[in-house]
Amino acid sequence: MRQTRLDTARIKAARQVIDPVFLDGPLYPCEALEPALGCAVSVKLETANPIRSFKGRGAELIASGLAGGDRRAVVCASAGNLGQALAWSGRARGLDVTVVASRSAPAVKLDRIRALDARLELVDGDFDTARERAAAIARHDGARLVEDSLDIETCEGAATIGLELVDRPVGRPVGAAPPFDAVLIALGGGAMATGVGHVMKALAPGVEVICVQPLGAPAMTWSWRRRRVVTTGPTATIADGVAGRVPIPAVLDDLLLVADDAVLVREASIIAGMRLLLDRAGLVAEPSAALGIAAILEDRERFAGRHVATVICGGNVDADAYRGWVGAR
Amino acid sequence: MRQTRLDTARIKAARQVIDPVFLDGPLYPCEALEPALGCAVSVKLETANPIRSFKGRGAELIASGLAGGDRRAVVCASAGNLGQALAWSGRARGLDVTVVASRSAPAVKLDRIRALDARLELVDGDFDTARERAAAIARHDGARLVEDSLDIETCEGAATIGLELVDRPVGRPVGAAPPFDAVLIALGGGAMATGVGHVMKALAPGVEVICVQPLGAPAMTWSWRRRRVVTTGPTATIADGVAGRVPIPAVLDDLLLVADDAVLVREASIIAGMRLLLDRAGLVAEPSAALGIAAILEDRERFAGRHVATVICGGNVDADAYRGWVGAR
Repeated sequence: MRQTRLDTARIKAARQVIDPVFLDGPLYPCEALEPALGCAVSVKLETANPIRSFKGRGAELIASGLAGGDRRAVVCASAGNLGQALAWSGRARGLDVTVVASRSAPAVKLDRIRALDARLELVDGDFDTARERAAAIARHDGARLVEDSLDIETCEGAATIGLELVDRPVGRPVGAAPPFDAVLIALGGGAMATGVGHVMKALAPGVEVICVQPLGAPAMTWSWRRRRVVTTGPTATIADGVAGRVPIPAVLDDLLLVADDAVLVREASIIAGMRLLLDRAGLVAEPSAALGIAAILEDRERFAGRHVATVICGGNVDADAYRGWVGAR
Repeated sequence: MRQTRLDTARIKAARQVIDPVFLDGPLYPCEALEPALGCAVSVKLETANPIRSFKGRGAELIASGLAGGDRRAVVCASAGNLGQALAWSGRARGLDVTVVASRSAPAVKLDRIRALDARLELVDGDFDTARERAAAIARHDGARLVEDSLDIETCEGAATIGLELVDRPVGRPVGAAPPFDAVLIALGGGAMATGVGHVMKALAPGVEVICVQPLGAPAMTWSWRRRRVVTTGPTATIADGVAGRVPIPAVLDDLLLVADDAVLVREASIIAGMRLLLDRAGLVAEPSAALGIAAILEDRERFAGRHVATVICGGNVDADAYRGWVGAR
């Protein structure tokens, strides 16, 4: 069988490198969601840490790798969460961090990147425009270019979530199979989907790996379905964290090995998912983090009576936008 | 020196009894709160578990103790969170759980108690009325009466939060003193305040222990200040979780040994605290869980430049009420 670029032993070792503040986020069954969803749901919460997303895991691996070397400058394009993560991890290690982001990224993400002492460069255009600009900066300055989902640290960092899904007790004996039979993962560039998916295939192959993307940003899902890279025109989704147009071939190759399905969901379902998470679970999810719940809402029959896990992967929302999404009854 | 009723070795042993789903909730610095508060704040999150409050810790100790014995019936009065906790822990062990609560308790708490298969009896009146009724049921049925804050399991369960505040790394070497110099704890019946306070005095005596109660429910704070039990008339606060009129003498005795201060805060500050936690930290806190932030807002000079920790002890809010509190800008 073909192998992904990821390595399970390296993923396990990564836990020793990542600051514990990013590890072992809560994993628990959320029974109050059941009546609305028709299935049992366990949530893996990745928002209760200093940067409110899972991206600290990968950023820690990158920053740790750079900390001992001569090159102290690092640059990344970011929809906002990787930028915060790299700023946090870089600041802790005296690195010189530059983040390139779209001017249209949520203000809360941009503000936090600045507050964490990173240099922030804004581009007119979207995430893929920012990617091009970050590459140009790296070439010009000789900085380490961090490419989300391509750089193996971003995938293997995210993959440590998978270890915790498999290993941690949720009312079951240590070492027993996970109580859930499917995991719903937000799909954007593919770091989290390939990371968590790799670990599931390696350590819990009975668990169905389902990736979820917005209908308004379907590039990776289309690519997965056609088994070749498909790019799209401009994205149209509130799920800014997963809005890419240009999938990376190597990441798609990995995704083809570990994903059992990739589904697309409507904006209204994402909003309904955010509202459910707030009202029934007391959780603030950014749109990308509600994709799993949205997928259940759109296909209740598929999940009826099952037990699924979903990763609440980020909670960075602009206060006004969030009130708009969840405020109206 | 006089000793509290709590025992540090027993508190450490309690961690082996409590379901891990209630242990080791996130503890992390929340820099986005700093500009508004003028001090560094670390939050200890107790809402990311199946019952959305810290009460599972004590309930687990009680239910475990009963599980091996002949008496399978247990009854408690509850403002809503202990009832959920006891229902959850009792269901897992086949116990017969009865919860007595005020008819005016938040619907979300009452609904969850019912959903967890407990028998729920509502009384006209407040928490202290429910206490009387629960005692009568216990006498009549021969059930184990659980008295929050009086029963040592409720205090020592809560005290395990203190162990995690002292022991867990927040970007510091294991074994080093906590990075914070004060801990702000919601004060109601006193289980959490005496529990966390006991551990701080035993293991981190340099940390100031500050209890916070609403001006509209000041009985325990007045009692602490006068060093004798003071009861009050009806309470008037949205912080339903800490609204008691009749302090328990033995709990006050413990509180006098471990609290360095007890302060009272206004309702407007509690609401402002909930809003800050939502907007800057992405955290849903019930009013009682925002008391610590409210205390900082009311006395910024006291905390200026310091690093404080506060326990976000519960997140069970009625959706409509919560929108009312945090919705208006």
